[in-house]
Parts: sequence; structure tokens; C-alpha cells
Amino acid sequence: MKVTLKGDVVKEFEAGMSVYDIAASLGAGLAKAACCGKINGELVDLRTPVTEDCKLEIITSDDAEGIKTLWHTASHVLAQAVKRLYPNAKLGVGPATDSGFFYDFHVEKPFTSEDLVKIEKEMQKIAKESIKLERFELPADEAKKLMADEPFKQELIDEHAGKGEAISFYRQGEFTDLCAGPHLMDTAKVKAVKLTQCTGAYWRGDAEKASMCRVYGVAYPKASQLEEHLTRIEEAKKRDHNKIGRELKYFCTAEMIGQGLPLLMPKGAKLFQLLNRYVQDLEENEYGYVMTRTPLMAKSDLYKLSGHWDHYRDGMFVLGDPEKDKEVFALRPMTCPFQYNVYLNDMHSYRDLPIRYGETSTLFRNEASGEMHGLIRVRQFTISEGHIILRPDQLEEEFRLCFELMQRTMTDLGLIEDLSYRLSKWDPNNREKYIGTPEMWEKSEGMMRDILDHLGVDYVEAVGEAAFYGPKLDVQIKNVHGKEDTLVTIQIDCMLAQQYGMTYIEADGTKQHPYIIHRTALGCYERTMALLLEKYAGALPMWLSPEQVRVLPIGDNQSEYANGVLKKLKAAGIRATIDERREKIGYKIREAQLEKVPYMLVIGEKELEANAVAVRSRRDGDKGSMPVDEFLALALEEDRTKAK
Amino acid sequence: MKVTLKGDVVKEFEAGMSVYDIAASLGAGLAKAACCGKINGELVDLRTPVTEDCKLEIITSDDAEGIKTLWHTASHVLAQAVKRLYPNAKLGVGPATDSGFFYDFHVEKPFTSEDLVKIEKEMQKIAKESIKLERFELPADEAKKLMADEPFKQELIDEHAGKGEAISFYRQGEFTDLCAGPHLMDTAKVKAVKLTQCTGAYWRGDAEKASMCRVYGVAYPKASQLEEHLTRIEEAKKRDHNKIGRELKYFCTAEMIGQGLPLLMPKGAKLFQLLNRYVQDLEENEYGYVMTRTPLMAKSDLYKLSGHWDHYRDGMFVLGDPEKDKEVFALRPMTCPFQYNVYLNDMHSYRDLPIRYGETSTLFRNEASGEMHGLIRVRQFTISEGHIILRPDQLEEEFRLCFELMQRTMTDLGLIEDLSYRLSKWDPNNREKYIGTPEMWEKSEGMMRDILDHLGVDYVEAVGEAAFYGPKLDVQIKNVHGKEDTLVTIQIDCMLAQQYGMTYIEADGTKQHPYIIHRTALGCYERTMALLLEKYAGALPMWLSPEQVRVLPIGDNQSEYANGVLKKLKAAGIRATIDERREKIGYKIREAQLEKVPYMLVIGEKELEANAVAVRSRRDGDKGSMPVDEFLALALEEDRTKAK
Repeated sequence: MKVTLKGDVVKEFEAGMSVYDIAASLGAGLAKAACCGKINGELVDLRTPVTEDCKLEIITSDDAEGIKTLWHTASHVLAQAVKRLYPNAKLGVGPATDSGFFYDFHVEKPFTSEDLVKIEKEMQKIAKESIKLERFELPADEAKKLMADEPFKQELIDEHAGKGEAISFYRQGEFTDLCAGPHLMDTAKVKAVKLTQCTGAYWRGDAEKASMCRVYGVAYPKASQLEEHLTRIEEAKKRDHNKIGRELKYFCTAEMIGQGLPLLMPKGAKLFQLLNRYVQDLEENEYGYVMTRTPLMAKSDLYKLSGHWDHYRDGMFVLGDPEKDKEVFALRPMTCPFQYNVYLNDMHSYRDLPIRYGETSTLFRNEASGEMHGLIRVRQFTISEGHIILRPDQLEEEFRLCFELMQRTMTDLGLIEDLSYRLSKWDPNNREKYIGTPEMWEKSEGMMRDILDHLGVDYVEAVGEAAFYGPKLDVQIKNVHGKEDTLVTIQIDCMLAQQYGMTYIEADGTKQHPYIIHRTALGCYERTMALLLEKYAGALPMWLSPEQVRVLPIGDNQSEYANGVLKKLKAAGIRATIDERREKIGYKIREAQLEKVPYMLVIGEKELEANAVAVRSRRDGDKGSMPVDEFLALALEEDRTKAK
Repeated sequence: MKVTLKGDVVKEFEAGMSVYDIAASLGAGLAKAACCGKINGELVDLRTPVTEDCKLEIITSDDAEGIKTLWHTASHVLAQAVKRLYPNAKLGVGPATDSGFFYDFHVEKPFTSEDLVKIEKEMQKIAKESIKLERFELPADEAKKLMADEPFKQELIDEHAGKGEAISFYRQGEFTDLCAGPHLMDTAKVKAVKLTQCTGAYWRGDAEKASMCRVYGVAYPKASQLEEHLTRIEEAKKRDHNKIGRELKYFCTAEMIGQGLPLLMPKGAKLFQLLNRYVQDLEENEYGYVMTRTPLMAKSDLYKLSGHWDHYRDGMFVLGDPEKDKEVFALRPMTCPFQYNVYLNDMHSYRDLPIRYGETSTLFRNEASGEMHGLIRVRQFTISEGHIILRPDQLEEEFRLCFELMQRTMTDLGLIEDLSYRLSKWDPNNREKYIGTPEMWEKSEGMMRDILDHLGVDYVEAVGEAAFYGPKLDVQIKNVHGKEDTLVTIQIDCMLAQQYGMTYIEADGTKQHPYIIHRTALGCYERTMALLLEKYAGALPMWLSPEQVRVLPIGDNQSEYANGVLKKLKAAGIRATIDERREKIGYKIREAQLEKVPYMLVIGEKELEANAVAVRSRRDGDKGSMPVDEFLALALEEDRTKAK
């Protein structure tokens, strides 16, 4: 059979060889590094036989899918170690996650940190033993006999059997686990391992069911890789906006107000205002937007037309009881039909288009309480929402302008380097999720592809990620934890104008439906604020710092002069404060530094006499003394240029 | 008995004399003008006997209460006229309103405008007949006999009888009506009368009940007064923001979104932004405020603590079912506890106070559908909310600053002349509406009175208008319809900090509860926008005009030059547009004038050659040609000075 390998190299192999055997025949190094394979794009176990012509990839631990396979095997090693040390522990489940693995155990008392150290050592021993993993399948009754001592596994076997699925196992020495795989060939590569924490959990996530002890860990083939990973996690934790955002008093939460409803404190509210005015001014003055300000709620009628009532009601906050009340409202999860109604309030000619509507729009999502996180997973958020109503002939130019505007904001915020681009397409196999015909989808996806190619954008394509009304360009960003999320989206929509009855009069006098671009200029404000706090570890660029300069007089003698400096800075538009407390100057500087104030102006007798200020930068420390006007000019320039 | 009259003049009268008799003994002119009286502040009929020492006012048609009495009598005259002309008409009710009177009739077919003219003539005849009105009371069974032909009156009598109330009547000639009064002595003063319209209504406002024909009217003792009233109404109608605000495209509404939920169109959204940035900048840069941005909803727990859950739940939009759901949220009707939670997130020292929190805060009120009106009666509105957390010794200075800020915004908006001031106090006879002890109320009302006196504010006092937690200074404004409303309020609150557990550490190390001032800098944005549109009949001062200048090239030859002018204006921060349509210049000017654009710059060949613009002001018309820079300087100056 012919197998197409990496770099489109085609080689002949004997049919029936396993992925591992093929890797081994290509080289001992590759076989050693191999974690799993991909046959025609589908992830498979190394033991899987290759039976016909195909495309084959050998996946190593350098790939995300490879390291995940290693972590999965590591979870079995963990369970094996626990069973050796605590034979009475009952096994739950043990998957790999995006950042390691865990295993749930039912034990008499939760593991202590001393227990974890012991288990870790046993795992290292198992790795050294380099135990082979074997895969096998059993009929349900035999499977249940094999797992006679494991009540949770019994439950899983019954479930699989009920669905008519094969019951597969992996055995490594004395330890056998019910598992679908894939797994490594042996335990040797789970060499550098760290158990990171142990938390409580419920069997199947159900508080009515048994309590489990969940042990988390991470593993790598090399100690240096593990160390790097742990350092990265530590760094990310330090930068976590949910930690520093609270410490630096950007936001807080209140039990009585509710989860997912953060309160922006003065610094957070200032950052919001700075970002919001920046976006509004850019859109209005340089990109020809007009603003709207539309209601945060609407009658159910509107959501029935938009389709949200039928397809998204659980995600909405509904006001009133549809069974009892004459009028039922819901808080809005989107701005689209509100801006369409502004358009619908008027007649439009082809000469009026494009109309670019922008709105600082607050939206609501009724998410479950447990899923809330800082400024990122929230129930209420605000977005620089916009809809461009245009003629078909204006599509490319308007899309280009949206893309340019997004690049402009991302450059100014310093996030442009962290972005990647994704063309999100419909899923032809899941047609009930979308409106429109296959022809319309082909056409609009083709248009977007052409525009992106024309703009020279480097993008990947993703099936099934489109909006229900059209394809999207998703601008993706990785946060400090390495998690990828959509920050900005620009969508082409050739269908909704018709659904909402939006028209314009063409040059020839006929009534036409416009196209619509749905877009944002930056991510929702809360998420963008979180990303900025993490990216800069709280030390925001000066143009975004709520407090840009703090004046620090050394004693009361300099009070009048220091207040004069403060006044001058504020009159020039610099966000400055003064710390006149009777504390030691070292203490005041330390505090300002901890609060990440970009510049501290220390004022003693010498500065007063010289009409100067001693400048301290949070980044570079002491920058020496300079005349007030010189510092002011530097500060204004740094603000104006949005220096990072 | 001793009766204290106007100007504290005390006179002796025989006990038992009626109010009218006393008025007559004081002078024939006063008796003729008298409409009703007030004994010790309580409104009474002219026929009421005065039986003991008291304070007595004679109320004429120049007073609001006097003209209302006249209107009430006019409604009886209307009913008498209808019964003369349409004997089969059945009587509903007929009260006076704030701007006239109406009477509901059950008739076979609604009155036409010709009918109204006929009825009006009959009313004038009845006035000329100068028929005396007599008051009498009957027991319920006799009352029902008297009103045997009037089914609606039967229902009312049953109701009154059920409550044990006396059934009182007023008789004028052949016409008798069930009525509590007060009424004029005769029909003579209902001289100048106008029936303004006739609409459909339901008996008791219930769509399940009988259809009524409601006839509206207004009346005065003199024709000139009536004419003045009608002119005022006409003028007010022309300025009604609900008319011009839509015509000029400041806002619209959408059936599908719901009543009381206006959509701000681009001009409205721009005006909102201008006002909002103006207030935020003033507060932050000149009055030392820090901003917050807190959630628009909270769990019921918060409203339980604030008291809204028990006392105001019907006025709130509740999300979820308190019977079924674990967590129930409600949209906020106020900002107070949200900003308190920001305060509570930190420790505070006496040196940190005052802290002045400001927020552009959107609030919600679940009002009945029928009560909605334009931008004024709405379900969602946004306010420049603020809470100042202060030490007791800072109260006067902080109150003064709030008052000064309000005066500043009202001066800048041009509304200062239309204001009056009211000290709103608690009602000691309705104690369950308020928290705190009588001593605390006496103290805080005393403090406010002292401060107002000290500031030289001219104010009236109003019992029962306080907030539940403290006295208010209400800044009242009359709109174009003459209706008075509260625009701004500044409240002193010595009680809530304790309720919410807010403290600060005093200089002596003890924990103290701060005082709070609740205040706004201007009225809620929607109401302020409505008032401005009405005050200026849509021609907003230049600094608030969404579009300040429109450039009007006469032909294509001037296009390049005109666009250069546009660019120059925009670069200088002027909100300018260009009208390059191939329309006649007269047409373009007319349109800009109708849209109330402050300045039109006409550009023809002559202007191009002279590097000039021909300036047209919406107010003064043609102002001649001038160099572009000269116009720009004038425009910037008008904007900067906020000229009216």
C-alpha cells in the first residue's frame, strides 16, 4: 500500500503494519518520539494497523495532540501508583486536559500534600520500569468481571454496553483501566512528572453522587520541559487579571450582587472610558461611523423574528413569564436588530450607502454560576458593536476598512503580534444550524476568501464556526495561559437584510436588499481590559494608565511648589495625582511603584529651587532631575504616540 | 371667631358664615372672583361654613386650584349641555385635569366636530343663564332613585354607599350630578369655553367595560385668557420633543422592541455623547470625582437589603421566578448600593474622605405600557448618578459644591432661568414610609435648611417628598406644557452608611459611619435631551448641535475646494458635513434650515476664487462672505463659549 508521509513523500508499506511499526521503519528516533498518529486527518493509537493507501502523520510530544496522549498515559501511571499505595482507592475517570491531566479517586480521606509527594515518587518508579501498555477488548460481561472491584467502572461499562459500544482496555503490568485511548507504547516517556494539586469533585459532576478526590498533574519527557511548563504557569498566575486586576483595584465583585457581574472600580472605569472614547473617536472621525444608542431590552416579538427566542432562550435573561404576562421582555444578547430598526425608520437611496452604525453596546448572557471568571466569563459585557449597511459593490472596500480599523486598534493596544486569523465557515453536514442555501454559502465564503487573499491575510479555515447567517473572519488571540479565544470578528451577511425587510432604492429605481457587515473594532471591553492587564502584568502603557504621573513632595515645605506642578500637568491633560501624606519618601515611591504608576516626580528642596522635578520611571527607575516643562513634553509625547 | 386672612390680617366674623359670605363681606370684587377657599391649608367649597378660629384663603381663578374648580364646574356645564341636546346620553364621570376638563358619555355614536360646536354653543348659553349651583346630600336609596336613568351613576352610588360615604350632589337648574365638589357658585364664570377634542375611552379605564365618548375642553372667565391658553398649547405642541425629536431624527421607537424603549438615532446618540462627556469631564477634572461602572443587575439579596424587594418590587424588572429559581436577579432602579459596594471593597481613613463617586448609570423602571411618552416616560434611562461619601464636618462644603456643579450645568445648557427649588421633607404622619427617628429627620432637615439659607437659595418646603432615607433638595423645572417636574436632586443621607456597614477610621482610631450625599449633575439624559429639544424648538445651541456646519457647494466645480473646507473644519474639531447632491442650492439650504443646522457655508465660484465661504446662519440668515479662517475662528469661539 502507498502511504503519503510528511512533506508529501509517498512510501510503500506492507498492508496491516501498525502506525508504530511504520514510524520504526522510518527511524528509531521517530519511533521513540512518537505519541500517536493521524490517518487521513483522524487521530489514532500507535497500535492501529494501517490497511490501505492513506495520508499518515506521526505525532510526537512536540505537537499538542502528542503531548495530550502522553498526559493521558500519565493519568494511567498516576492511577497505577495510587493503586499500589492505596489498594482500597476506587477508580473514577482520568482524562488529559489542555494543560495536563487528572484522575478522580474515591478514597476514605483526601490525599494530603505528603501523599502527593509519595504518589509522584511511585509514578517516577513506574516510568523507570518502562512498562508496556497493551490494548484489548472484552464483551460486557467479561469486562464487568475484570472490573469487579471497581463500582464506578461497572457503571461506565453498563453505559457503553447499553450503547452497543466495544469495551476496550489498556493494561500496563498489574494495572488495567477501561479506556478508549490512544496511549503511548510504554510508561518510559512519562519521566518528568509533577502532581500540582488535589481538589474535591463529584462523580460525574453531580453533587448528589459520590465525592471524589481529583488529583491534577502534568508530565513531560524531559525535566527541562516540565520546569519550563511550571514556570510558565507561575508567570501566568502572577499575571492573571483576576488576581492583579483586583490587587490593583481595577475591579471587584460582591457576593450580594452576583457572580459574573464585576464592578469596575475607579481605575477600571477610567480604563473603560479611555478605550471607549478612543474607539468612538476613531470610528467617527476617521472611519465615517455614526453612532446609535438603542435599548438594552426588547419584547419577545423581536427575538422571535431574530430566531433567538427559539434557539437561544436559555442563554437570555427573560423578564416576565411567557405563560402569564401580556408583554414579555428579554435583555439583549446582540445589537443587530436594534440597529436594523434605526435603519428601518427611514427610506434610503443607493447614494446613502454605506451607512456605518457604531454603538457602545452592553449585552447580557445568562450563563451558569460556576462558569464565571473575573472580567472574562461574565453575565454582562460591553462591546464596540457595529453594522455596516452596504451595496454589494461596496463589500470588498468596506471589509478592508473594517480589517484596517481592527489592525489599527490592535497595534495601538500592542496586541497585534498575538493575533491569528480564522475564516469560519458553515458546516454543510449540519444544515439546520444555518439559514440560506448551499449556493449562498458558497458564494459568501468565496467572497470572503477572495478578499482575505487579496489583503494578503494569513488565515486557517474552520468548518462549523460561522454565524448562522454568514461566514466570519475571527481574529484569534492567545492569553497568558496559552488559551486561544476569539477577540474580534468581521462577518459578511447577505441574508438578514431580507429577513428584516431592509431595503434601499437603486439608481434604476428598483428596491434592493443591502448586504451587512457585522463587526467589532476591538474585543468586548471587559475581555480587552483583562488581556491588557495580563499582557502588561498590570503596567499598562502610559496612554492607558488611569494614573499617569504621581507627584511626591518630600516634605510640607515643597507642598505649594508640588501642587503647582500637579496643576500644570493636569491643565495639559496628564492624569496626575499628588501624595502629600506625611510618610517617608521611600515608602511613597514603593507604593507608587507597586501600583504601576508610569512616572513618579519626587520633589525636594533641590527641585523646588531649580524649578525642576526628579523623575522616576516605573520601568527604568531614577531618570534624574529635569525642568518641569521638559518632563511635560516627554510625557505628552509618550501619551500621544501610544508608546508601549 | 377670629379669621386670619391674607397678609396675616386677623378679622372677626360671625361663626357659621360661609367662605363665600366672608369673601363678599371683604368686597364684591373678591366675591366675584372667588372659586374656592382654603381653611388651614385644606381646600374647601365656597359654601363651606367657617365655624371656628382659623386661617382662611380665598382662592380665585388666578390660582391653579381656583381655575381647576372653574374647570370642574365647566365639566358640569358640558354635561348639562349634552343632556339638553342628547337626552339619551348616559353620564359617566367628569373631572378637572391639570390643563382643562373632560366628561365621559355613553352615546349611540361618537360626537362629530359639528356636534362639539353645537355643544359649545349650548354651554355658552348656560353660562349666560348664570344658573346657581346648589349642594345637597341624600341617603343611598334616595340618591339611586334620583339617578334612576343613569346606570353608571348607580354603580358609583353603590360603591360610595358600600364605603359608608355621604352621597353629595350639585344641582344647576334642570341638571343634577353626583359630585364631591368644590364648585363655583354659578355658571356665569364659565364664559370663554372651548371643546378641544373627543376621544374613545372605557368606563373605569377597563377595556372589558362599556365604551365611552370622552369630550375634552378648557374654559376661562375671559376670552383673552382662553385665547392665550390655546396659543400656548399650540406652541407647546409644535415644540413637543415627541414630535420634533422624531422629525429631526433624534430618536425613534419600534413596535417590536416595545413602548418606553426609544432608540437614539445618530443625532440623538451624538447629543447623548456630547452631554455625557461634558458631565464626565466637568466632574473628573473640576470637581474631583472618580468614576465607577457597576452592573445593571443584581441578585434579589441586594434589593432585600436596600428595601426595594419589599417596597418596590412591582416597579422592577425581575429576572427569574422567586418561587422556582435558585438565583433571582433584578434590573436596577438605582445605583446607590452598587457604588457602596465599591466603597466597601476597601478600608478607608478619614484622610481619604470625601470620595466622590460618579457613574453614567442606566436604570430601569417597569412602568405600565400606557404611560410611556417619547424620551420622558421610559422604561430605561441613563443618569449622571453620584454619591459622595464624606465626614460630617464636610457636609456643607460638599453640598455647596454639588449645588454649584448643578448651577454650572444648568447655566451651560441654558435652563437655569427655568428652575425653582424645593426642600423635600419627610411626612411625620406617614412614618412607615421612612427609616430613622424623628430626631434624625429634624437634624438632617435642619442641616439642609441651614445650608440652603447660607447659600441664599430661594426655596419652598414640601412635606412628604423626601427620600425614605433623608431630605432632598429638588431642582424643579417647568416644561413647555407648563408641567413641573424634578430635574436634579441633591440629597443628604445620614442613615444608609450604617445600614450597609460602611465605615472609615477617624483620626482618633475609632470606626465611624460616613454621611452620604446622593446627587445628579443634570437630569437623566433622556429627559434633559427632551427639555433641550423643547426649549430650543429643535435648534440646539451650537455646542450641542450634532451637526454644526454644513458645506454646500453650488456645483461640481467647487467640489474639491468645498471638501478642503470640510476637512479643515473637521480637523479643528467642528462637526461638519457636506451636501454634494446635484440639487438646486435653494433646495439644499432649505433642507439644512429645516434640519436646524447652525451654519450653512455656501460655496460658489466667487468663494472659491476668494478662498472664502458665504455664511448663512439658521437664525440670522445670510451673513455675507468671509475667509474660511475667519469663519472657523467664529465657530470655534461660539462652541467654546457654549453660546445660546
